[in-house]
This record gives sequence, structure tokens and C-alpha cells, in this order.
Amino acid sequence: MPKNILLVDCNDSRGLVHAITGALLKHSLNITMNQEFVDKESSRFFMRTEFDGPLDGVSLVNELTAILPLGALIKLCDQQPKKIVLLVTREPHCLGDILIRHEFKQLQATILGVISNHDSLRNLVERFDLPFHFVSHEKISRQEHEQKILKLIQGMNPDFIVLAKYMRILSPHLVDLFPSKIINIHHSFLPAFAGAKPYQQAFDRGVKVIGATAHFVTEQLDEGPIIFQRVIPVNHSHSAQDMANAGIDVEQIVLSSSLKLLCEDRIFISGNRTIIFD
Amino acid sequence: MPKNILLVDCNDSRGLVHAITGALLKHSLNITMNQEFVDKESSRFFMRTEFDGPLDGVSLVNELTAILPLGALIKLCDQQPKKIVLLVTREPHCLGDILIRHEFKQLQATILGVISNHDSLRNLVERFDLPFHFVSHEKISRQEHEQKILKLIQGMNPDFIVLAKYMRILSPHLVDLFPSKIINIHHSFLPAFAGAKPYQQAFDRGVKVIGATAHFVTEQLDEGPIIFQRVIPVNHSHSAQDMANAGIDVEQIVLSSSLKLLCEDRIFISGNRTIIFD
Amino acid sequence: MPKNILLVDCNDSRGLVHAITGALLKHSLNITMNQEFVDKESSRFFMRTEFDGPLDGVSLVNELTAILPLGALIKLCDQQPKKIVLLVTREPHCLGDILIRHEFKQLQATILGVISNHDSLRNLVERFDLPFHFVSHEKISRQEHEQKILKLIQGMNPDFIVLAKYMRILSPHLVDLFPSKIINIHHSFLPAFAGAKPYQQAFDRGVKVIGATAHFVTEQLDEGPIIFQRVIPVNHSHSAQDMANAGIDVEQIVLSSSLKLLCEDRIFISGNRTIIFD
Amino acid sequence: MPKNILLVDCNDSRGLVHAITGALLKHSLNITMNQEFVDKESSRFFMRTEFDGPLDGVSLVNELTAILPLGALIKLCDQQPKKIVLLVTREPHCLGDILIRHEFKQLQATILGVISNHDSLRNLVERFDLPFHFVSHEKISRQEHEQKILKLIQGMNPDFIVLAKYMRILSPHLVDLFPSKIINIHHSFLPAFAGAKPYQQAFDRGVKVIGATAHFVTEQLDEGPIIFQRVIPVNHSHSAQDMANAGIDVEQIVLSSSLKLLCEDRIFISGNRTIIFD
Repeated sequence: MPKNILLVDCNDSRGLVHAITGALLKHSLNITMNQEFVDKESSRFFMRTEFDGPLDGVSLVNELTAILPLGALIKLCDQQPKKIVLLVTREPHCLGDILIRHEFKQLQATILGVISNHDSLRNLVERFDLPFHFVSHEKISRQEHEQKILKLIQGMNPDFIVLAKYMRILSPHLVDLFPSKIINIHHSFLPAFAGAKPYQQAFDRGVKVIGATAHFVTEQLDEGPIIFQRVIPVNHSHSAQDMANAGIDVEQIVLSSSLKLLCEDRIFISGNRTIIFD
Repeated sequence: MPKNILLVDCNDSRGLVHAITGALLKHSLNITMNQEFVDKESSRFFMRTEFDGPLDGVSLVNELTAILPLGALIKLCDQQPKKIVLLVTREPHCLGDILIRHEFKQLQATILGVISNHDSLRNLVERFDLPFHFVSHEKISRQEHEQKILKLIQGMNPDFIVLAKYMRILSPHLVDLFPSKIINIHHSFLPAFAGAKPYQQAFDRGVKVIGATAHFVTEQLDEGPIIFQRVIPVNHSHSAQDMANAGIDVEQIVLSSSLKLLCEDRIFISGNRTIIFD
Repeated sequence: MPKNILLVDCNDSRGLVHAITGALLKHSLNITMNQEFVDKESSRFFMRTEFDGPLDGVSLVNELTAILPLGALIKLCDQQPKKIVLLVTREPHCLGDILIRHEFKQLQATILGVISNHDSLRNLVERFDLPFHFVSHEKISRQEHEQKILKLIQGMNPDFIVLAKYMRILSPHLVDLFPSKIINIHHSFLPAFAGAKPYQQAFDRGVKVIGATAHFVTEQLDEGPIIFQRVIPVNHSHSAQDMANAGIDVEQIVLSSSLKLLCEDRIFISGNRTIIFD
Repeated sequence: MPKNILLVDCNDSRGLVHAITGALLKHSLNITMNQEFVDKESSRFFMRTEFDGPLDGVSLVNELTAILPLGALIKLCDQQPKKIVLLVTREPHCLGDILIRHEFKQLQATILGVISNHDSLRNLVERFDLPFHFVSHEKISRQEHEQKILKLIQGMNPDFIVLAKYMRILSPHLVDLFPSKIINIHHSFLPAFAGAKPYQQAFDRGVKVIGATAHFVTEQLDEGPIIFQRVIPVNHSHSAQDMANAGIDVEQIVLSSSLKLLCEDRIFISGNRTIIFD
């Protein structure tokens, strides 16, 4: 029997868990996992339920719509792999990690293609029989370049866009086209060291930990809702380059862990925060 | 036989380890631990050596001065407990942790006294038979208040001043009087969330880790050389207050670990970075 | 309005969450936090619910008994501080940490007294105006010694007994008298290095991490259900004694974190495992 | 100028650092990093020195032999990539991680080939244009199987053999042929859960952390000198299979970190412990 997932995001009110579990029970669906959270700041209720059973999705959603507060977001997911497109520049480690996990079905995702503003990772991508699209940014305007990339993305129609060390800033225009659908890995524990050269910034400041942050991309650079962060200790013997080398492991784990959460429908966004049922 | 520690901080040049170990050998001193580091940015050499043996300190330092580059800082330490003064406001956890470690000789330090701008921690301090000095900041100017505190500190003549959750900003004047002698615990992983209410700032930004930083106090608030940092994971269920509660453990470990490093002569300062031989 | 906690531990069946939340709703109680888990191995359902509202406890429990599977364990907790007794030997760090947290109400616990087979920690305990009971084990049999301790414990009638580095093994007889009520801190990441001198064992094996484990005490030494574990890295430069020193921080955090979970009614026991709603 | 590394492992005596640095100075070699350690248990001295400069290796080793205690092990390394052979069974994650790092020169190693008792990872290996050798263990004796593998290994003549999730036990005979040259990844924090099915063992014991250990292979299964260990937290919601999934990240980082240390000549073995200069 297929596993299904119900996501509910609505204004809080008394009795929501009871009401939703009642609807599932009425449909003879068997809840195998249930997680809920009320964000007191926004008075918003979030619930993620995994259940088995033969599903009449339309009728279930209709019933939930009737009993939930007006404006409730109700989503039924069928655990099909999510379709993703990767954007990269020249660094291979996050891409390589995702390609291996993808190849061995450790991600609930299907990679539609990889787009880059350099040609250097073509070989790696093609080793895995995946399409690689090289879109040089040379001799064209920033806008033209992004247009070409946008056209490629739209041609593939992905569920999510993953910036796996893509070293160019997306325009607000492009970001707006894919709300809550673009994730990025930034090589610092944000909000520290946003922007360029975070390892050099970290070295200059003399910090004793470095880290990485995966987040949704919004119009404000490096300020979108954070999904996952992890750090590792460093010491005085680390140059900025040593930090960058040491950071590789953290970056790839933070990105692939976030991608996993995303593809398993475990992330809600509430304002500038994420609610993650892991 | 007493254990001694030699600290050397000088311009780098070829053969320094050989030269310094030669001087110790000539004095029949037995090196039990040796650590050295060259900061390539500043071309500066740092070395910390533990050794046993009957010591003619004056003669050793004279010899080292003769063979080391001009301007070398040479320090011989005898592992006597360092004398410290604590400044606190109202939070008991960092203070309590230090008092327990002090009581059971886990710190190489002697607490000369505790100064506070509130009277609420008097009872805790006096439980350990240590002097508590209450200096109210009410009805007097910031300057007058600091003058009173300064006078108390100067009367005790400590090696180091420890801000164990002291919630007032010291003036540049006071800081200048104790260069590289004041350490502070800040309840965030600096440089993120400097200044007031770091847990609220962390909550507002929606971070997935929180942390604490111990650093030397300089004229620039929360910008001095960092000694130690540690973080713990948080999630969407943590309110700002929950983060503050969870942060207690990290704050006290970061501060007492830093204090231990300081009292064991394990920290060098190089510009705005620390070199720590742990 | 007081916060209440409902704990349910029963055989799993479909619709439990719906049924329990229905009963609470009927009583006009407002759920502020709900966590549930089904242990598939044992087909057992666990739920912890925090709620506000004027409570008719007897009637609520009666209703839940009627709707839940036969043999369900139903517990209503009122968030009163738990009464605890500490047993210690000579090491001060775990005891000191708990005393400080107790003094500043960071634990939902009231310490009734501290019992030790040595007199050396009396001074520390009495600094906090708490009863210290010295029961020497010298010149009497192991059985006689335990009888004296048992009598003291029974006189105080605690909810929980905390072995805060108590270096003697309790007899199965005593353990049986307090099922699921005694917790211990062991200074290794169990099941590695059970029994005596875990740091020496860790040194001898050459491990690169050391840790601590808090667990419920059962008849089998160091084999009861584990509550919390944490580790820290070590390296070749750590002697067994260095490991013991470094382990202090971990031990005290593991014990006090576990004690907090216990006193906040967050722990269920399922066979030899714990279910922890934190 | 090429970077060179000197490794010294000898009985401890006074003045060794001075003597060795003197020999390097005499050859006008410039020390860029120096690390030393004395194992007090065995009274053994270990030193690793990185230096630049035009090198007359034979003469330097001769001089060091003359001044160091009898039986000193002196090794000059030229930072050429180490030649390695990988043995695998069916799990792709550790292998995949190493292949990516190898492809992008993040390991100081050259993979000569991959040997497996199953054919399922052939495709992955051949994507990277590396030789894959399938040696089925079916229908032949354990001894015959190992003979075939041994012959393959000997044909490639590697510096190190890496068991990257090779699920068969090597005989003492084979292990003896490659002393201190075989490393293995075990999916538990040894010494806990040695042998088969460590995640199931961890689940059964109800631990709150799981981990991985990389170690040298000796005749005693899972008892060789440990190189690196790391753990991650788990909770009651993790089945044995969930632990295995979560453990993937730790296993691959522990193995590739250890391989990096090995290939950069950073590991000494002292009895059953490793000394690691990282």
C-alpha cells in the first residue's frame, strides 16, 4: 500500500488535531506518523501526517476544507520523486555528493539536468548520463545570461531548483518566478559572513567555528528562511584556504540533508522561519 | 620538581625552535611538551614549552633575549594560580559554574572577589566565602559607576577580569587600562548577533544553531579576539526564551573552558586572532 | 492557569490520537503541545500532551480509561517539582552542577537530601543549606551499609533517586524497590566501557571520542534503559587522567539534562529503551 | 620548491627536537610545520616535520641515523599521491564519496582499482574510468576466494588497502602480509557493537548516539588501532534501518577523513593506539 502524506498549514484554533485525525479515521486511513506545531507568534498551525490506506484524495481534501479554518493550505503528497534542476559553477563537491546519492536512490528526487556558467563540471555530470547545460556568461549581459538559464529551467519544469555552489546572484525577477522553490547552500553559518568570500571573512575575524547554511532563496541575498546549519571547529592553524577545504564536508552534508527534507515534504515556511518535521 | 612554562612571541626567522630548545638543553631543562606556530600573515613565531628542572630564570631569559630577534616577548610562568576578579549582573549560571570549579581546584585561578551592579547574586557568592561587592548603578552617572568599579578592581590587583554575564558596556578608558586582561562571554556565535538580545535576534532570523563566544574585550563591542566558541542545534519549536534556556549549558562551558586556557598560559594574541595551544 | 501534562502508554490501535484529543476537547482543555509515538516492535502507543484549562482530573481519567485499550497507563501530572535524593561518593562536579541549577530553579526538582559514603562533600552540600547524610561503608558489611542508606531514602520518600557519581553498586534488592526511579551517570558511551575505570579502558583501547551516559538503574550493572548520551573528541595526547578531566563537562551536562527530562515528565520506558519527548 | 615530510619514531631521550632541527638547519632546510609527541607509556618519541628546500635525502637520513637513538624509524616522504586499492561489497556510499574526492584531487591518492565480491558496483566504478575486479565468492572456498583477491592486490602493489564497506573478514594470513597498510570502516563507535549488524545491536541496546570508526586492520576483528571516530545523535523514533540511513553520512566522512590522514603521512602507530598529527 502506498504511503501518503498530508500537509496542513492554517490559522490555529482549538480542536484541529482532533478534527483532522477524525477525517482520516472516517476514510479508514491508518496514521503511521503525526507531527504538529503551533507557531505562537503567527498563531499558525502546521501538521504533517503520514498514513497508509486506499485514498480518495479529492473527497478527503474536500472534507478537510470544510472543517478547517478559511484559507487553510492542504496538500496531499504521494511520495513520488521530486523533479529538480541543479545550478553549479565550478566547485564539484556538493554536486558530486548529490549525484552519488541520486544514483543510488538516497534522495527522493529525479535530476532533470545540471546548468552551469562554466563547462568544467560537464564531465562529472555526463559520467552519470545526465544532461549538462553550459551557459557561458561571457560577452553577454547579466540579464541575457539569466534569460537563457530561465528558459532552460522552464523547459524542464522542475519542482525545485538547487543552487549547489552556483556563484552568481539570481535577480529578484527570477526568484519571484519560483517562490519557495529555490534552495541555496551558503558556506558560512548565516547571518555571519553573508555575501562574498565567507571563509576569508571567517579567517579575518578569527572565529573558532566555521559552518554552512542551506536556505530558501528570496530577493534579499542570503536572507531567506534557513533550512539547516551545521558547524565544525577550526583553530589558529587554519588559513582561509584550510577553512575552505575543511568546510567541504559540512557544505555537502548540509545541502544534501536539506534537499532530502525538501523532497520528503518535511518543510513548512512561516514568515522567515522554517518548520521542519524530521 | 615544579613544572615551568616558557612563552615566546617574536618575528619569525629560520632556526628558532633549534635555538630555543638549545638554550633549554644547555640549562639541563627537560622539555615535556612543546608547541609552536608561525602566523604567516604577520610572519610571527609563537612557542609554548613546558619543562621540568631547577630553573635559573633570569639567566635563561637573558640567554634567550640574546639569541632571539629583537623585540621578542619572552615570558616564564610558574603555574601559580592566576588572580581573577569576576563581574556579573543577575544571571547565576556562568558564575555558579566558575564558583564550583574554583572550589574544587579545577581552575588554575584564585577568585579575589565578585563585583555586581545588582545585589541578587550576593547569597551565592557568600555561600563560597568569597567577597561580594555590590555597586549599584542607580542614581549615579555611568562614569561614576565605572569609577567605583575600577577602584575596587585596582584594589584587588587581579591578573585577569572575567565578565561572567556582566550586562553593562565597559568604557574604552577602562578597557585600555587592562589590555588583553579582560575576557567576556557573549551569548551568540559571533560575529552573528553582536550587541543586545542575541537570542531574540537568533529567533527572529530563524537560525538552526545557537552558540556562545568567549573573547578578549577591546574598545569595539563584541569585536575582540575570540578564544572559544561552541554551538548547539535548535529547531522551530524553540522560542527566544527556550533558546536562552538551552544556551545556558553552552555559555558556561565556553566561559569556563576559556578561563582555563587563560589561566594555564595557553593563549597568545596575534592582531585580532588568538593562537591557542591546547 | 496551571499547565497540566497527560501521559498515555497503551497498546496501539487505530484512532487513539483522535479519541484522546476528543476527550480533552470535551473538557474544554486547550492543547498547547502534543507528541505521540508508536513503537512498532512492541505495538505500543505513547503520547504526552501539555494543556491548559480548569481540570477535573478524576473525571478526565475515568473517561480516558473507558475509551483506551485495556491496561492503558494514564498519568496526569501537575508540574509540581519532583522530590529527589542524591547519592554521591567523592567527585564534586555532577553534584555541584545540580546544586547550582537547583538553587536557581533551573530544575523542576526539590532536593530532599544528599547521601554519601564519604564525608568530603558535606561542606559543598551544606553551603546550600541542604541535608547531608554521611554513611560510612567502613567496618560494616555491604548489606548493612545499604540497609542504612535504604532507611534514609525511605525516610525522605523521594520521587527519584539520582546517582551523581555514586561509586558503589546497588543490590538488586534495593533496585527492585524503586523501579524506574533510579538514574545513574556512567562515564562512558555505553555499552562501551561498562564497569570500573571507563576512562582507563578508553585510553587502553585508544578511542578518539569519550562520552557519558545517563540511564535508569536496573539489576544488570550499566545495562538499564539509556536516557541521554553525549561524546567529545579526544586525541593521542590525552592520558587516562586527561580524559577524566575532559569528561567532567560531558558528565555533568548529560546528568543534569537527563534529570531535567525526568522531572518534566518527558520520559517513557519501553522495554530496555526510552521514549523521550523533548 | 617541493614540500617534504620527515617522520621520526624512536625511543625518547633528552634533546631530540634540538638535534633533529639542527640537522635540518645544517642542510639549509626551512621548517614550515613541526609536531612532536612523547608517548609516556612506551617512552617513545614521535615527530612529523614539513620543510621546503633542495633535499639531499640520503645524506640527511644518514646524519639523523647517526644522532638518533638506535632503532629509530626515519622516513622521508615526498608528498607523491599514495597508491591505493579499494575493497567493497555492495554498499555504494563510502565508495562513491571516495571516487568523487579522488576525481577532484581532494585525496593525495591514486586509486589503482576496486575489487568486490559482487558485481553491482561495477557501473559506478567504471563511470570514473577505473578498473573494477569482480571476484565472486560463490562455489569456491573462503581460502580460494581470498587467494584470488590477494593475487589481484599483489599485481597492483598498492601502498594501502582500503576496506570501504567490504563485508567479509580477511584471514590473519592476508592481514599479516600488509602490516599497518589496511584500513577499515566499521559502522559503530568501537569498541561498542563490534562484529555483525552494529545498527541492529545499537537499536536493541537503545543508544542515543550512533557512530562510525575507521581503524587499521589487525588479526583481531575490529580491534586494530583506531584512526578516527565520529557520532551523531539518534532518538526513539529511529528504527535500526533509520540508524543505518542516518549513519551513511558519518561513515563516509570518517572513512575519507582517515584516508586523507593516511595519505598525507599524518599517522603513527604506537602499540594499539594511533598518534595523529592533523
